[in-house]
Formats: sequence, structure tokens, C-alpha cells
Amino acid sequence: MLWTMIGAFAATLTMFSFIPQIARSLRTKSVKDVSPVTLFQLSAGVFLWLVYGISRQDQIIIVANAVTLVTLAVLIFLYFKYGGLKK
Amino acid sequence: MLWTMIGAFAATLTMFSFIPQIARSLRTKSVKDVSPVTLFQLSAGVFLWLVYGISRQDQIIIVANAVTLVTLAVLIFLYFKYGGLKK
Repeated sequence: MLWTMIGAFAATLTMFSFIPQIARSLRTKSVKDVSPVTLFQLSAGVFLWLVYGISRQDQIIIVANAVTLVTLAVLIFLYFKYGGLKK
Repeated sequence: MLWTMIGAFAATLTMFSFIPQIARSLRTKSVKDVSPVTLFQLSAGVFLWLVYGISRQDQIIIVANAVTLVTLAVLIFLYFKYGGLKK
């Protein structure tokens, strides 16, 4: 029970970890120090985790990675919007 | 077998996803667009995933999160080294 709670807390923290980065990018409108390779590599990995979770029918893996993938998609959108690749 | 390979590939991609961010920060010596809240929240989450993996004796969870935690520690070190909080 304790371990399940630790796992759930871990999932919650990591799942929403890019929300502060989204907030910062929206506020500063600057993304030049953010690595696009990290964003794309992480998105590809998280997408495969999602596929893996669906194959295993593991709801925690599915939800955690689906949420992370959405936040990463927003971040990639902002990256291009604020001209990340031009600088 | 296919799903295990997808899981392993997913773990490899996400585990090393902050290496390009480390390389970029080292190259530009600038971190002002990186969110420190994201770095700390993700580190706390990944640390708890590691604890969870140890409790479940799940080697994949242990290795993936241990590696990610080391890369995040390096990134937090660089963040302070390049004066992230001062800007």
C-alpha cells in the first residue's frame, strides 16, 4: 500500500513535470536554451512507453505517458512558435 | 517479445533524453530558458520511481530511473554553474 502510494506520487510528479517549463516559455516567449533534440527524443520515448502500456493493459503507464505526451506536444508547439530553431 | 523490445527501446530513449540538453547547455553556457521547477520536480519524481523500482525489485525501473537521475543531477549542477537563478 505504501509502495503503491509512492508509485502514484512518483507518477504524478513526473507526469506534470513539464507544466512549469510550459509556463516559463509562455511567460518569457524565449526557448533558445531548450534542446529540441531532448524534446523530440523524450516524445518518441514517451510515445513508445504509451504503446508498451497499451500492450500490457497497464493503466498507470498509459495515463502517465499520455499526459506527458500532451505536455511535450504543447512544448514542441511553443518551441516552434517562439522561433526555437531560428536562433 | 516484440512488446519487450518496444519497452526496452522506450526506456533507452527516455533514459538518455537529457543528454542533448546537457550538451546544449555546455555548448551555449546559457540556461535562462530552462525551467528550474521542471528540473527539480522531475528529479523528485524520478527519485521516487527509483524507490518504487527498488521496492518492487524491478531492474528496468531501477536502471532507467537511476540513469535519468544522474543526468538530471548534472543538468541541475550546470543550471547553477551558468547562473540560472540570477537571470
